Amino acid sequence: KIEGWTPMGNEQKSGLVADWERLERIFIRPEDEECRKTLVKYMEQILFGLHDFLENHVGVTEAISLKELTENYQNTLINPNPEKKLADVISDIINQIAPRAVNVASPYFVGHMTAALPFFMVHLKAIVAALNQNVIKLETSKVLSVLEKQVLAKMHRLIFKKGEAFYSEYVQRADTSLGSFTTGGTTANITALWVARSRFFTSVRGFASVEDDGLLAAMEAHGLRRMVILASRRAHYSLKKSGGILGIGRNNVIPVDVDGRQRVDVKEMADLIKGFKKEGTGVLAVVGIAGATETGTVDPLDDLADLCSEHGIHFHVDAAWGGPVLLSRKYAHLLKGIERADSVTMDGHKQLYMPMTCGMVYFRNPRAMDSIACHSNYVNRQGSVDLGIKSLEGSREANSLILDSALKIMGRRGYALMIDHGIDTAKGFAREIQQRDMFQLITEPVLNILTYRMVPKNLQAKLKTAGPEEMRDLNDHIDSLNIHVQRCQREAGKSFVSRTRIRMRPGEFVVVLRVVLMNIMTDLSVLKDILDEQEAIFKTFPD
Amino acid sequence: KIEGWTPMGNEQKSGLVADWERLERIFIRPEDEECRKTLVKYMEQILFGLHDFLENHVGVTEAISLKELTENYQNTLINPNPEKKLADVISDIINQIAPRAVNVASPYFVGHMTAALPFFMVHLKAIVAALNQNVIKLETSKVLSVLEKQVLAKMHRLIFKKGEAFYSEYVQRADTSLGSFTTGGTTANITALWVARSRFFTSVRGFASVEDDGLLAAMEAHGLRRMVILASRRAHYSLKKSGGILGIGRNNVIPVDVDGRQRVDVKEMADLIKGFKKEGTGVLAVVGIAGATETGTVDPLDDLADLCSEHGIHFHVDAAWGGPVLLSRKYAHLLKGIERADSVTMDGHKQLYMPMTCGMVYFRNPRAMDSIACHSNYVNRQGSVDLGIKSLEGSREANSLILDSALKIMGRRGYALMIDHGIDTAKGFAREIQQRDMFQLITEPVLNILTYRMVPKNLQAKLKTAGPEEMRDLNDHIDSLNIHVQRCQREAGKSFVSRTRIRMRPGEFVVVLRVVLMNIMTDLSVLKDILDEQEAIFKTFPD
Repeated sequence: KIEGWTPMGNEQKSGLVADWERLERIFIRPEDEECRKTLVKYMEQILFGLHDFLENHVGVTEAISLKELTENYQNTLINPNPEKKLADVISDIINQIAPRAVNVASPYFVGHMTAALPFFMVHLKAIVAALNQNVIKLETSKVLSVLEKQVLAKMHRLIFKKGEAFYSEYVQRADTSLGSFTTGGTTANITALWVARSRFFTSVRGFASVEDDGLLAAMEAHGLRRMVILASRRAHYSLKKSGGILGIGRNNVIPVDVDGRQRVDVKEMADLIKGFKKEGTGVLAVVGIAGATETGTVDPLDDLADLCSEHGIHFHVDAAWGGPVLLSRKYAHLLKGIERADSVTMDGHKQLYMPMTCGMVYFRNPRAMDSIACHSNYVNRQGSVDLGIKSLEGSREANSLILDSALKIMGRRGYALMIDHGIDTAKGFAREIQQRDMFQLITEPVLNILTYRMVPKNLQAKLKTAGPEEMRDLNDHIDSLNIHVQRCQREAGKSFVSRTRIRMRPGEFVVVLRVVLMNIMTDLSVLKDILDEQEAIFKTFPD
Repeated sequence: KIEGWTPMGNEQKSGLVADWERLERIFIRPEDEECRKTLVKYMEQILFGLHDFLENHVGVTEAISLKELTENYQNTLINPNPEKKLADVISDIINQIAPRAVNVASPYFVGHMTAALPFFMVHLKAIVAALNQNVIKLETSKVLSVLEKQVLAKMHRLIFKKGEAFYSEYVQRADTSLGSFTTGGTTANITALWVARSRFFTSVRGFASVEDDGLLAAMEAHGLRRMVILASRRAHYSLKKSGGILGIGRNNVIPVDVDGRQRVDVKEMADLIKGFKKEGTGVLAVVGIAGATETGTVDPLDDLADLCSEHGIHFHVDAAWGGPVLLSRKYAHLLKGIERADSVTMDGHKQLYMPMTCGMVYFRNPRAMDSIACHSNYVNRQGSVDLGIKSLEGSREANSLILDSALKIMGRRGYALMIDHGIDTAKGFAREIQQRDMFQLITEPVLNILTYRMVPKNLQAKLKTAGPEEMRDLNDHIDSLNIHVQRCQREAGKSFVSRTRIRMRPGEFVVVLRVVLMNIMTDLSVLKDILDEQEAIFKTFPD
């Protein structure tokens, strides 16, 4: 008796049996009129009334514990026979799953970098899924590989502004790459640092490349005992992860202090570089942040570019969050210096408002990715135009079609309206916070993210005069208060802000509430409601 | 004057201007009735007549050179204003892009691991996009994180068969992981070897972990000068890529010879391991292949498991292709031994018939992934149930919903019908090839992939008696013939088989035609047509 082949009871009742005829039917189209009706109903709602649908069907409105939530998700056997009819499975998703998901599209969901999508994004994603192209190779994607190269060039031009002659040469050139679509900012960052690592270790006698020979051989050939990557304390944790995966070591991703505006301290960065060079440590890359995950702040990219160019260091800019600000005429200047980067990460599923999962990585030098080229006999043959040759990922869906279409539908101006709305609303929200007694603005918004916390009035004065030890005690108390407020608000299910811990001074971390403003339906009146609710929750907190 | 803000002419004519009102409208729903009609028309075709749609709209039917193809994809400036109305952009995709894509769903497209999807997969993908959950963290996915854990447990149970008690304990446990959804087989393989690397380097005095301290420190702490990964010559190229990324070095991913049935030579593997151990080289992992990309063959997994357990080596099975065969009652035995693996890669977008882009990696030990845990302050906090803690990727869409639904709709039996159809058809096709004069079967199908080549009758006898040099000349000639046939057939656009190069004996590579049978609409009569066409093309080849 083989486990998994005993009928499990429930499908007996449903009377469904998997046979070839039924398989063929269900493969091609809805099995019957009733099924079709159900699908039409829900797909109509999803495709043509997305925001009403999400409002009505999705999102917790009551506290539910994880324990309760998991109760219905315990069975671990796959049914031998079909468990349910297609229409019932879809109905279950809408009626059982969706209500217990999170309505990230709500104007009141301002805690993370996931928000409402323009409704047509779902259409585009469905089209991409239907075409089912695999852009790893031309033979399974044809024009979609060509389109991807064009879209990459458009975004490259937005970032690096190299001029018409440059892009005419490289836009469709088979043997060069302006960048790559990835599955997210994390793999984009890994790719950028992977390329940086490969290029750092130039061939020397008896050593070909770090890709071929490995890191130990590379470091020995270059007489190195240690490699480091330098990035602000505000850097995304994927950079530490990259350091781990690439064999550099997370401890060698060095967190550099920030100034009062949460921008990396360039002076300290310069001193560190000099120190590392002096002791013979290799500096693999300097990472500048264009839109820090927790504070939305932007490092002084021009100064970092100067530093990197002085020392011959790979300059990577993590613009996963902030990159699309380049589409705004009003705010593009905030990213000045990004055009001098060697590599840039940008996310599609953040401020380009594409569905999960889409990132991108760009390289100023169209030859940079040559160092990681990987061939095989059945695809990605030497000399082919297959996009999979230079890519961390293998098979990939044609996300470029979504971005290309969105850029045509929205134009730069359409995207700029969304970007500007977010930044302007953040500035307005900061003023509102400052006007309220019980709130303390922690980080001024540069882009569309800010942090703040609640501080009871009676403690505000004390904070100003407290010595180090009293300060710690006060902050501990304020921290637990803010954690309480954030949790209660999240559990209540109407609004959501996130929380994180920010380093104020060496050794001094405080819990802050974090707001990300990327929903065109979130305006100041929504944000005032959120603050009102926080004040109300605050009153329930035991002194 | 900033580049990119000068109107480009075409949008002037269209009269479209991006303003806030229009943005709000286009964000929420179709801007006007005409637009809605266009969208309804196409989405109706895609969602409810997918296979007819693909047949009618997609795929090249005439040769088109890459140069021609790229001609319309040269512009690299993003339009400041909307370039086209939504309805026009969608119409262009259908009328301009789709016809120049590849109809991978055609029964005559049997060259790669991408084929027809059950129509409901597009519905499910659209629902996932609409919900826009990010399973990196509970706060943006809630029940979808819980569902993911359940689906992972179902698949884990299919592979490792650990019994009810085990799964009751681990299915929803917050601090353990049975595996992870990834964005594909490549990142699944990287993840598996990344975990293997972390676990290999146990803490010793002065050394915490390879993640923290880096590979140089790790190798020194363990007194190693070299690390290797052993895998069959038939292994997927992502394993070499993994070796590169992880700092092991591609040259240290050692290709092990195969026997006459393209299975890894276990005796040679054992000898290599002994040799490496003797010289003090660390063996990081042995990789067994369950469904080789080029030949569909399966390594003797039980023997490899014995070997790994004898030497205490991490045993990874790359079942990206073959894994779903476990769903078949008839053929699951072909993967015997997979339950003894330490880690297993499986792809969703291959034989689980999910849309791009979905892979998975599983670990026998629910604690294995602890070694790569990565935390941050704003999400993935220590002790949380956030799935992003142990994952190569960051943000991820809720692909588990698609797999879970498909398993319910199809049952094991439904999937088994597809698996069995592929393998049985491959066997039938092999017999057909053997019956035809001009064809030579190169690799017998074990799963649903086989390779063959065309050999002119007059050369077949010569091949049997030729000496090494003559053999090389003959094969060179036969190679160019097969390349010609494959290209002509591809360009003609009716059918598609792929080609690769297979090592017959040391130093002797031959070009082969490769057929992958994963389309339920591909039967023997289709395959006979394909052979007929190849014979017809063959006759046009200059002698």
